[in-house]
Amino acid sequence: MKTIKDSVHDHIVVDGVARDLLDTPAVQRLRNIAQLGTVSLVYPSANHTRFEHSLGVYHLACEALEHLGIGGIEADRVQAAAILHDVGHGPFSHNLEELTHRKTGRYHDDVHDLLAVGEIGDVLREHDLEPDAVADLVAGNGRFGQIVSGELDVDRMDYLVRDAHHTGVPYGTIDHGRLVRELRFADGELVLAEGNVQTAESLLVARALMNPTVYSHSVARISKAMLRRAGEQLLEAEETDAHTLQRMDDHDLIVSLRSSDATGEFSRRLDHRDLYKRAVWAEIDDVPGGIIEADHEAIREFEREIADLANVDPETVIIDVPARPSMKESTTRVLVNGDVRQLGRQSPLVDALRAAQYSQWRLGVYSSDDVREPVGRAAVDVLGLDIDGPLVTEVRDGLYATLDQFVD
Amino acid sequence: MKTIKDSVHDHIVVDGVARDLLDTPAVQRLRNIAQLGTVSLVYPSANHTRFEHSLGVYHLACEALEHLGIGGIEADRVQAAAILHDVGHGPFSHNLEELTHRKTGRYHDDVHDLLAVGEIGDVLREHDLEPDAVADLVAGNGRFGQIVSGELDVDRMDYLVRDAHHTGVPYGTIDHGRLVRELRFADGELVLAEGNVQTAESLLVARALMNPTVYSHSVARISKAMLRRAGEQLLEAEETDAHTLQRMDDHDLIVSLRSSDATGEFSRRLDHRDLYKRAVWAEIDDVPGGIIEADHEAIREFEREIADLANVDPETVIIDVPARPSMKESTTRVLVNGDVRQLGRQSPLVDALRAAQYSQWRLGVYSSDDVREPVGRAAVDVLGLDIDGPLVTEVRDGLYATLDQFVD
Amino acid sequence: MKTIKDSVHDHIVVDGVARDLLDTPAVQRLRNIAQLGTVSLVYPSANHTRFEHSLGVYHLACEALEHLGIGGIEADRVQAAAILHDVGHGPFSHNLEELTHRKTGRYHDDVHDLLAVGEIGDVLREHDLEPDAVADLVAGNGRFGQIVSGELDVDRMDYLVRDAHHTGVPYGTIDHGRLVRELRFADGELVLAEGNVQTAESLLVARALMNPTVYSHSVARISKAMLRRAGEQLLEAEETDAHTLQRMDDHDLIVSLRSSDATGEFSRRLDHRDLYKRAVWAEIDDVPGGIIEADHEAIREFEREIADLANVDPETVIIDVPARPSMKESTTRVLVNGDVRQLGRQSPLVDALRAAQYSQWRLGVYSSDDVREPVGRAAVDVLGLDIDGPLVTEVRDGLYATLDQFVD
Amino acid sequence: MKTIKDSVHDHIVVDGVARDLLDTPAVQRLRNIAQLGTVSLVYPSANHTRFEHSLGVYHLACEALEHLGIGGIEADRVQAAAILHDVGHGPFSHNLEELTHRKTGRYHDDVHDLLAVGEIGDVLREHDLEPDAVADLVAGNGRFGQIVSGELDVDRMDYLVRDAHHTGVPYGTIDHGRLVRELRFADGELVLAEGNVQTAESLLVARALMNPTVYSHSVARISKAMLRRAGEQLLEAEETDAHTLQRMDDHDLIVSLRSSDATGEFSRRLDHRDLYKRAVWAEIDDVPGGIIEADHEAIREFEREIADLANVDPETVIIDVPARPSMKESTTRVLVNGDVRQLGRQSPLVDALRAAQYSQWRLGVYSSDDVREPVGRAAVDVLGLDIDGPLVTEVRDGLYATLDQFVD
Repeated sequence: MKTIKDSVHDHIVVDGVARDLLDTPAVQRLRNIAQLGTVSLVYPSANHTRFEHSLGVYHLACEALEHLGIGGIEADRVQAAAILHDVGHGPFSHNLEELTHRKTGRYHDDVHDLLAVGEIGDVLREHDLEPDAVADLVAGNGRFGQIVSGELDVDRMDYLVRDAHHTGVPYGTIDHGRLVRELRFADGELVLAEGNVQTAESLLVARALMNPTVYSHSVARISKAMLRRAGEQLLEAEETDAHTLQRMDDHDLIVSLRSSDATGEFSRRLDHRDLYKRAVWAEIDDVPGGIIEADHEAIREFEREIADLANVDPETVIIDVPARPSMKESTTRVLVNGDVRQLGRQSPLVDALRAAQYSQWRLGVYSSDDVREPVGRAAVDVLGLDIDGPLVTEVRDGLYATLDQFVD
Repeated sequence: MKTIKDSVHDHIVVDGVARDLLDTPAVQRLRNIAQLGTVSLVYPSANHTRFEHSLGVYHLACEALEHLGIGGIEADRVQAAAILHDVGHGPFSHNLEELTHRKTGRYHDDVHDLLAVGEIGDVLREHDLEPDAVADLVAGNGRFGQIVSGELDVDRMDYLVRDAHHTGVPYGTIDHGRLVRELRFADGELVLAEGNVQTAESLLVARALMNPTVYSHSVARISKAMLRRAGEQLLEAEETDAHTLQRMDDHDLIVSLRSSDATGEFSRRLDHRDLYKRAVWAEIDDVPGGIIEADHEAIREFEREIADLANVDPETVIIDVPARPSMKESTTRVLVNGDVRQLGRQSPLVDALRAAQYSQWRLGVYSSDDVREPVGRAAVDVLGLDIDGPLVTEVRDGLYATLDQFVD
Repeated sequence: MKTIKDSVHDHIVVDGVARDLLDTPAVQRLRNIAQLGTVSLVYPSANHTRFEHSLGVYHLACEALEHLGIGGIEADRVQAAAILHDVGHGPFSHNLEELTHRKTGRYHDDVHDLLAVGEIGDVLREHDLEPDAVADLVAGNGRFGQIVSGELDVDRMDYLVRDAHHTGVPYGTIDHGRLVRELRFADGELVLAEGNVQTAESLLVARALMNPTVYSHSVARISKAMLRRAGEQLLEAEETDAHTLQRMDDHDLIVSLRSSDATGEFSRRLDHRDLYKRAVWAEIDDVPGGIIEADHEAIREFEREIADLANVDPETVIIDVPARPSMKESTTRVLVNGDVRQLGRQSPLVDALRAAQYSQWRLGVYSSDDVREPVGRAAVDVLGLDIDGPLVTEVRDGLYATLDQFVD
Repeated sequence: MKTIKDSVHDHIVVDGVARDLLDTPAVQRLRNIAQLGTVSLVYPSANHTRFEHSLGVYHLACEALEHLGIGGIEADRVQAAAILHDVGHGPFSHNLEELTHRKTGRYHDDVHDLLAVGEIGDVLREHDLEPDAVADLVAGNGRFGQIVSGELDVDRMDYLVRDAHHTGVPYGTIDHGRLVRELRFADGELVLAEGNVQTAESLLVARALMNPTVYSHSVARISKAMLRRAGEQLLEAEETDAHTLQRMDDHDLIVSLRSSDATGEFSRRLDHRDLYKRAVWAEIDDVPGGIIEADHEAIREFEREIADLANVDPETVIIDVPARPSMKESTTRVLVNGDVRQLGRQSPLVDALRAAQYSQWRLGVYSSDDVREPVGRAAVDVLGLDIDGPLVTEVRDGLYATLDQFVD
């Protein structure tokens, strides 16, 4: 039994299979992957890692299992899955997922593959756990998989409080103690016990407020887009391949970017926080055939056209189109009068928060400050933006944005 | 200059008129008035007082004034108003307001009267402040009155974080530092600067989550209703009058209730936390002529009829009809593209939270546990509740509630 | 099973005998006794009560029992003792103990008596616990009594963190999680496991820093002395007797003081925080026959002589001689190389902290501000203070203090 | 003006020269240097950086300047020094200082050199500050240098609370608000105002408790020694030179260690947390000619002899001899009765804490677990340790330690 001090949950007791998993290289690697990627360029104290988060998820999983009265091999499996749930992540957490997904067809390394081999596979088998069964839980499959990955999972509970603790933004401070206590199983589904519509709403609200303030802060989006572009340059220069990139940690990636001629400019800019600026920041016209449906190659082509028109280096124009807002928590299940109900049908907040997310959904075109004006004008042309419509306006010379709450 | 250590804001520097006001009996009296009244019967650590809250409001007012660039006599007035904003409160804060309002025609003592006389009046005049001008600010009047009492006032900012700190419920933990920094004046109105729709929403959300969890928790409502009834018995027994009651502090009131034959039963129950239970907990039918329009006498008559039908002592039936939910924050003003907009028009959250409040709005009929069944049945009859309709159902013998999330 | 939200320990689960004890009048009464008595006149947010503290002690006792592997009836007894450990306290916690002790021969009500009778006795017997056995644990007797009352008791752990949380003074923030985890039994004695000399020192240091800053702050001492004098006046006026006084809660005592002619002056001063000032604040000459050996009557006689000489009302002079500093924690036991050792023999800090306590040990003579000068001069005469010696100097007209770090 | 959210101090306002300095590469580099080096191998959430610490030091410096009433160019200089005080640090903060000092003759880069050149020099001169004057403050020279580097500097105040926040160890939680408020200048020296002996002691105590628990935790010492050895191997293999090493950040160093054949073994071990164990952990015999006086070459020779005798690879034996304990805070100055006194002469705690530090002072000999036994035996021989004396005993086969509180 090992007791580890954590800044969020205080003492975390690690035992059994979890303890042995902790010492594997794949889990130790998570010490070198920042939980929030480039968000630390906005919130300088947000340097926490996937490792401490994994410990926190394990801790909350243990509490949930205790309250749910689950023990034995099933608890071991969930605990192993909790410790391992992020081992597939590449450097900078989610920041490069799109890139590696495009190249490898996977958002992150296949957990079934990772868990079957090497020291992790050995440890699991020593503890009589089948790697596939644990990987299923990581993927959120099955009754107990919901504890690790689902609408009410302990992953979300940990990251909200942890991100709040390390950024200093209080919105994520949920009552995780209450959440894990109120978990129940009803008809094989993980639900919140009677009297917890509010508790479920608070989880939803926390994420809805953390989203624009932290996770999708415009500077975090810009730096993430720059990092993604640098990663792409690295692959194009064949300095590495997508699979190797995916297995790097933050140190490897940063030094690779610094060392390569192809990525020197973005690397220098990221290192010195000399970031691109927004030339376009416009509400997205979510219509058939609209930009949201363009694939990566189409976007790259737009970037080249914009650069061409603006007479700048094509590498220095970045179009950033985030996916349609989702709200996984809307299907959170709560017990109401003995029936299992989806939060989205029970609470008017769900639709309101979804609407709020859509109203904050923005297309970004980024470039270095000195060419922002020509890039902005060119982007309007190339992307066919209607600067007389409600979605985008010329805020000042060459800067086009949906005016609503735009702060440069 | 005096530095006072506060558990919420750390060091609070009190100076000038505020320092002198602090030593007046009327302000010192606030040490003996619990901020949350009977809420401590639900959250045992919520024993904070109006005094420390007043200090906190003063502290945030000073920060707001600094960020707004307001100094001189105008700042003095606001600081005085901040320290004094609660001096009119009776014992147990808002718990007895309805009672004293009914008897005296006032929700709390007239601040204009209180500020003009005694040591407060002396101190204000010594510092060249006119009591009436300060009282106007307390009432939220005028440009600077909005800082003390309005949609974006520092009163709300302090009580949310303070109540969160002392109850342990995290929902009230707003980013008050950001809120006071982002205050601006636009066309004479206090607004939040550009880019703060989210910040405004977070304030709204915090109150919306604290409301059912803390302020209107069913046990807090029951104990408050019992306290109000005891206060009424005290007045009816002519052991005191409404004005004297209003000037008591918590100690006086509690001992008065203990000492009077008329109030012995409720006093004992409150002291021993031997509280009434809900016999009816039903959604309110907000129709013309409905119970929401009944005045106090009509309610008292209903209570007597219920008691009569149930064959119990008329004093042991309490009907509790809260006022229609309000959402003052919906008129919070934010700057959006240089225009002042009301949050209610800008954010879909406002309507959703208002709808949520309405869906939680409940009529309560309370009685001692042993007669809950007959009282429940009688209340259904007397109040003409439709137990086949959606608003109320027989949950179990003699207990009638809107089923939705009812937890006994 | 009942879950209670606490501002310090978050969720506290109360079950079994503890849950039933919680509903007894004697435990509910603790809601009305301030944990720190008059300390709230120095730290305005320190309004926490013996009730929440008792819950906290129960919570830590449960954790300690779990880590020590103690269950069954023995755990029930300890849990009951934890909830009940403060039921004997009079109003304002320790503030009036000296007074009631003098009158009744007891520092607080005899716990053996209190636990045998009334609802507490009934509840204990219903749960097959003998009141005497539980009272023995409260008194710190026996193997398991050390958990509740001893050098390493959970009482101290709770009050240090709780007092830090509510005053805002960080010094009490110990690592209680580690302390309860590292408890062991060795030869029937409660000790800290190997590797915890530091942990034991941290507990000692926390109390040593909280002591002058919070518990013995000069303003807390003055107001406590005034309250004690008022209590004495109340008894002398035969408005109540010592036993009744002891069973009052804070509300009763405050209103009694307000109502009595005999105590009106002190009551008004305490209510308005119009406190006495120090006329003498001198290091204590701890010699045979010195003031530390004077009994209450001798002190009262000195007060009268001083008043006579200063020509002031004898009731307005208060001499305050605190007992010799003690350091219970010096006998804390820690395991060092398998041997049980007393911290006082292991750590040089113990002697240093004891020396520090002695160097802060002060005799106070208090009076109203307007007569401080004559009272100070008279006190020097009557008490035979050597104002040319190192223990006391005339700081300014009529104010005599050990200069060392004197701040008026 | 820029407002940055910090997890410790909440909002930090950065303005003027500090704001411009923040954007320089030399300051941005501090984002990539962990504040506590390898301590994160003990406390997984301790991933905070020198960058956020520098912001915190700047913030406290601003508060100190305000309370001290210092403005104008002098305040600008102090603020610049606060932001810049750590720019000379090499990778992993202090972990490699001994190594680079040995090679370059400097503990860290000369601040006078660093501040005069590049963007920092430009920014300083643009704001009419002479780099040398700022560098003097960083070095703690002059009246105002004491604010940045001295017994009462804001550097220490920030790191104690920040390290407590991020490790979760509460001992560092000092009352920094009070400390900065109580700073005064007396005869050109920075002192704490009257009444603050306790406050000064609390700072001392905080560091004394953090030291063994965090900064000198045995696992932190072992991993630091391994990192230092790896750094030495890198230099010996001529893969880099000391000056280049010193200018690396953590990313560069980690990847350099991973890439070099010479350092592969240590690099793998540090990456996988497969750390050396203690073979000797003995109290240090502080006698003339003792090991404390041995220089690096002598230590290396001992290591080789031990390896030879134990028949293991000479690179796998590490002797770790920490410098004599120091207690800079003992010369903290406090005002006592108007005189400036050194805390060490005023408080018995200083000597006690120094004695405690000496009693914890340990010589370590580390090796991989599988050869711990032969290495331990060989070290006893080579270092001439008296295993019958009080300083070292054979705890079990081949493991030699001062028994006192040894926990493997």
